[in-house]
Amino acid sequence: MTKIRAFGANSPEEQLKPLLITRREIGSTDVEIAIQFCGVCHSDLHTVRDEWGGTIYPSVPGHEIVGIVTHVGKEVKKFNVNDQVGVGCLVDSCRTCESCKDGLEQYCEKGAIQTYNAHEKQLDQQTFGGYSERIVVDQDFVLSIPKNLDLAATAPLLCAGITTYSPLRHWKVGKGTKVGVVGIGGLGHMGVKIAKAMGAHVVVITTSPSKVEDAKRLGADEIILSSDKAQMKKNANSLDFILDCVSAQHDINVYLRLLKRDGSLTLVGAPDKPLPVSPFSLIPGRKSFAGSMIGGIQETQEMLDFCGKHNIVSDIELIDMQTINEAYDRLLKGDVKYRFVIDMSTLA
Amino acid sequence: MTKIRAFGANSPEEQLKPLLITRREIGSTDVEIAIQFCGVCHSDLHTVRDEWGGTIYPSVPGHEIVGIVTHVGKEVKKFNVNDQVGVGCLVDSCRTCESCKDGLEQYCEKGAIQTYNAHEKQLDQQTFGGYSERIVVDQDFVLSIPKNLDLAATAPLLCAGITTYSPLRHWKVGKGTKVGVVGIGGLGHMGVKIAKAMGAHVVVITTSPSKVEDAKRLGADEIILSSDKAQMKKNANSLDFILDCVSAQHDINVYLRLLKRDGSLTLVGAPDKPLPVSPFSLIPGRKSFAGSMIGGIQETQEMLDFCGKHNIVSDIELIDMQTINEAYDRLLKGDVKYRFVIDMSTLA
Repeated sequence: MTKIRAFGANSPEEQLKPLLITRREIGSTDVEIAIQFCGVCHSDLHTVRDEWGGTIYPSVPGHEIVGIVTHVGKEVKKFNVNDQVGVGCLVDSCRTCESCKDGLEQYCEKGAIQTYNAHEKQLDQQTFGGYSERIVVDQDFVLSIPKNLDLAATAPLLCAGITTYSPLRHWKVGKGTKVGVVGIGGLGHMGVKIAKAMGAHVVVITTSPSKVEDAKRLGADEIILSSDKAQMKKNANSLDFILDCVSAQHDINVYLRLLKRDGSLTLVGAPDKPLPVSPFSLIPGRKSFAGSMIGGIQETQEMLDFCGKHNIVSDIELIDMQTINEAYDRLLKGDVKYRFVIDMSTLA
Repeated sequence: MTKIRAFGANSPEEQLKPLLITRREIGSTDVEIAIQFCGVCHSDLHTVRDEWGGTIYPSVPGHEIVGIVTHVGKEVKKFNVNDQVGVGCLVDSCRTCESCKDGLEQYCEKGAIQTYNAHEKQLDQQTFGGYSERIVVDQDFVLSIPKNLDLAATAPLLCAGITTYSPLRHWKVGKGTKVGVVGIGGLGHMGVKIAKAMGAHVVVITTSPSKVEDAKRLGADEIILSSDKAQMKKNANSLDFILDCVSAQHDINVYLRLLKRDGSLTLVGAPDKPLPVSPFSLIPGRKSFAGSMIGGIQETQEMLDFCGKHNIVSDIELIDMQTINEAYDRLLKGDVKYRFVIDMSTLA
């Protein structure tokens, strides 16, 4: 058991500040990672402020972790000291249920162990995330980071990247498919890049004319302004799949109309209130409204390799650990293109 | 052009009564059918009372039609005089769009021609349904009825049968799948019979203890009382597919919880108001909420042949044409097990 430096909050009302947390000793299958960069996900903010309920304090968030291996346990075969690695939203799962056996640990039937705010059985305490010096993780939940990618900009792939990659793969987006992306933020901008690299025709649907140029730069083939009723009508029944990355309340029926017969709209952003869905948005075209949550470990590695091959990283703004509270304020205003990443060397 | 006897309404407020309508002369590819029985679908009532808007008067409903071929056009090859045939919800479509080419005329991109309350181009008038002596339909939209089935009880297969058969096939229900059926009425009771014949393990989910025995008789392997929270909790994440046949408002999230990972709940009943869906009902298990509408012509024939092979018909209450208004009142109270069918010989 070692005490290490971290950044977190002691209650929902408090700002994040430096604190000390305990990490377990390296077990035989564990990897210890010196964290170099950690992305800032909206879930971090929700958790620290207890907006979803159930936050255990002190709370240290962060699940877009990249760094360098500093120690490995005796039985670790997959990684060596000095390897460039990552850790995403999960650090363990039951490994025996149907979902785990299918490589879908995120849907573990016993409940996967989240990187923060879950229960770490080894120390009988809450798990602590990546706003910290080091982390100790079982090798089976550690990912290899392609060497050709900018390391800081790779961090958001561990959550935003896999959250968009997994549904695009699952719903078979690729050459010949026309895919819509709604909500161009941390998730959506990754969705556009990845769908484009998969060979799809990518249509960005946005409420704001100010995002048109940026959507093109990210790789969009077409842009639909959702505030323009004529454009929305003209594009009815035109898309095979829609990736919905909006985490605020929004009228899902407007987007369901854009789907072709047998199309699916998949939610990866998570508005906290129910979304009203008209039966007539689904029935006349056998359409589906679905949800998807991050991805399994094997698929996360596949996504990282895919991003390495296609030279895809996140658009980021690198920040110091000490400015995290301001970054949260800006995150709430949507004032970031498109992901804050903390330079963990500034924790010192 | 011939005048024939029918039963219909001249306005939303009026009761149905005898009236005369015009049928076209038999074209070269047309089949004329003497209607023997016609099922009573809730859509009939919605249309006659203009509850969905857009009803053209006089309105003659009925799209669960069975009868005997009385005349065929010169080029008709598929049917002969005296054949036992049926007509469902569709009498024509564009035949050239992608959906029509895929045998999914119900999703015709130009809009399929419904059996009633659509536009019949030959006479430039509204289409009139099966509450009538005879109907003239292009051979491509006429179905063969298996000889071994009770003809009156076969009528509801043309709408209630195909509406439940099509999604069960599309979502691959069969041996090894556990399928839930919600709402045991005209649609749901067919869903139970068909899913059972497909080899699935069938679970009826009902609010009313009074339906338990009947659900078993229809073929249910298990019954979950949705009013019993303990039962609902015990059965969380247990079903591969749910066929939702409820046409009243209901909380869909309660049923989504019963689905396994990657399961779909498909709506075939059509509540008129939007249903609130919590993102957290879909995201943590990659679940889908979908809709499905009747079925294509080829699939309807497949369904009829399947029902012939498995000896499946609807549970019906045979009524006289003159009692249709009382039947509508009883339909609204759910007082029918499970489908009214009109004996059209009583139209005289």
